[in-house]
Amino acid sequence: MIDRMAKLRATTISVSLDGYMAGPDQSLDNPLGVGALDLHQWLFGTKSWQASHGDGVGATGVDDDFAARANENIGATIMGRNMFGPVRGPWPDDSWTGWWGENPPFHHDVFVLSHHPRESFSLDGGTTFHFVTDGPEAALSQAVAAADGKDVRVGGGASAIQQYLRLGLLDELHMAIVPVLLAAGERIFDHLDGGPTGYRCAEMVSSPAVTHVRLVRD
Amino acid sequence: MIDRMAKLRATTISVSLDGYMAGPDQSLDNPLGVGALDLHQWLFGTKSWQASHGDGVGATGVDDDFAARANENIGATIMGRNMFGPVRGPWPDDSWTGWWGENPPFHHDVFVLSHHPRESFSLDGGTTFHFVTDGPEAALSQAVAAADGKDVRVGGGASAIQQYLRLGLLDELHMAIVPVLLAAGERIFDHLDGGPTGYRCAEMVSSPAVTHVRLVRD
Repeated sequence: MIDRMAKLRATTISVSLDGYMAGPDQSLDNPLGVGALDLHQWLFGTKSWQASHGDGVGATGVDDDFAARANENIGATIMGRNMFGPVRGPWPDDSWTGWWGENPPFHHDVFVLSHHPRESFSLDGGTTFHFVTDGPEAALSQAVAAADGKDVRVGGGASAIQQYLRLGLLDELHMAIVPVLLAAGERIFDHLDGGPTGYRCAEMVSSPAVTHVRLVRD
Repeated sequence: MIDRMAKLRATTISVSLDGYMAGPDQSLDNPLGVGALDLHQWLFGTKSWQASHGDGVGATGVDDDFAARANENIGATIMGRNMFGPVRGPWPDDSWTGWWGENPPFHHDVFVLSHHPRESFSLDGGTTFHFVTDGPEAALSQAVAAADGKDVRVGGGASAIQQYLRLGLLDELHMAIVPVLLAAGERIFDHLDGGPTGYRCAEMVSSPAVTHVRLVRD
């Protein structure tokens, strides 16, 4: 058990009506998988997302409220290898530095779950990527230390979130249910022996675009 | 292909956040499976449901609008064996006549998908139960004929809906997404080789209790 006050939170996780959070055939051209870009349009339009990722011009309202809350009090991020990039297997070199360019939107330490070791490296704006090869609990311990009292976000993908659900270590899961069907890809509630156990719905609020759901540990 | 103007509709299908429309361990005491009664509270409270199943006293509003639409222009019902009752295997006798008492709320012909033949029988109020052993397409043909120009409802359960989704014969699926987690049971979008294909979301509307989603064929 990891001694911590900090919460582990998955936020702004967009899920299709048939339960998918990523489409099939992820690639360099289609990092979210085929069709999955539609899942995130509600987020891309918010003022909060545009403030951290775009030109700062965006909508306020229910969707923006959830996008803003997602960024509050986050001191470190954990993500799966596939969210970090399309490279599979051992790292051939250090050329891949993530999808986010020279100044990634994290501005804190990011811990990438990987089976293959790689040296940490830093980019502009205070983002340092670390590669953790000894499992999700080790990654959480390191992230909690790096977050220095703030919460830790698990950014995705599906496999990373499922690992923390299985371990009962995820404290909060905010999903946006999006009115699209993907029919294939990666389901959020898969590889769990059913649904997640030990969680309840603390909040369900709809905007014109999506339905926001916040699950918390019982 | 069945020549028809009538639509095949699944309506007021309540689904948990983790995708379940029935709980585990269905039995005589727990016909919907453990925990699944919570899924239907939004429906039980509506004026339309109470008009057909209860004392006629219930709430109006978004939920009632969907409950009322579900009953419009329905001339026949199809259901799976497990929705009809807890008896499995060959019918030992004719004593089981459904969950709904002497005056079931259908008031039209009901076609039960079964592997085991049984004579049709009628109850009060115009409901006749038929048992169809030659598959979902045969049941649909018979139901369309019985509906005499009106639509046909597939009432459930999950397996019956999935059979019609796989065949591409379901024209409309109205789901109510309910803010509960079941963690086990029967998922609506299972046994489909992924999500349903050939459908799109035509409507997504929330009440304070649930989010209503209407899927239609492309």
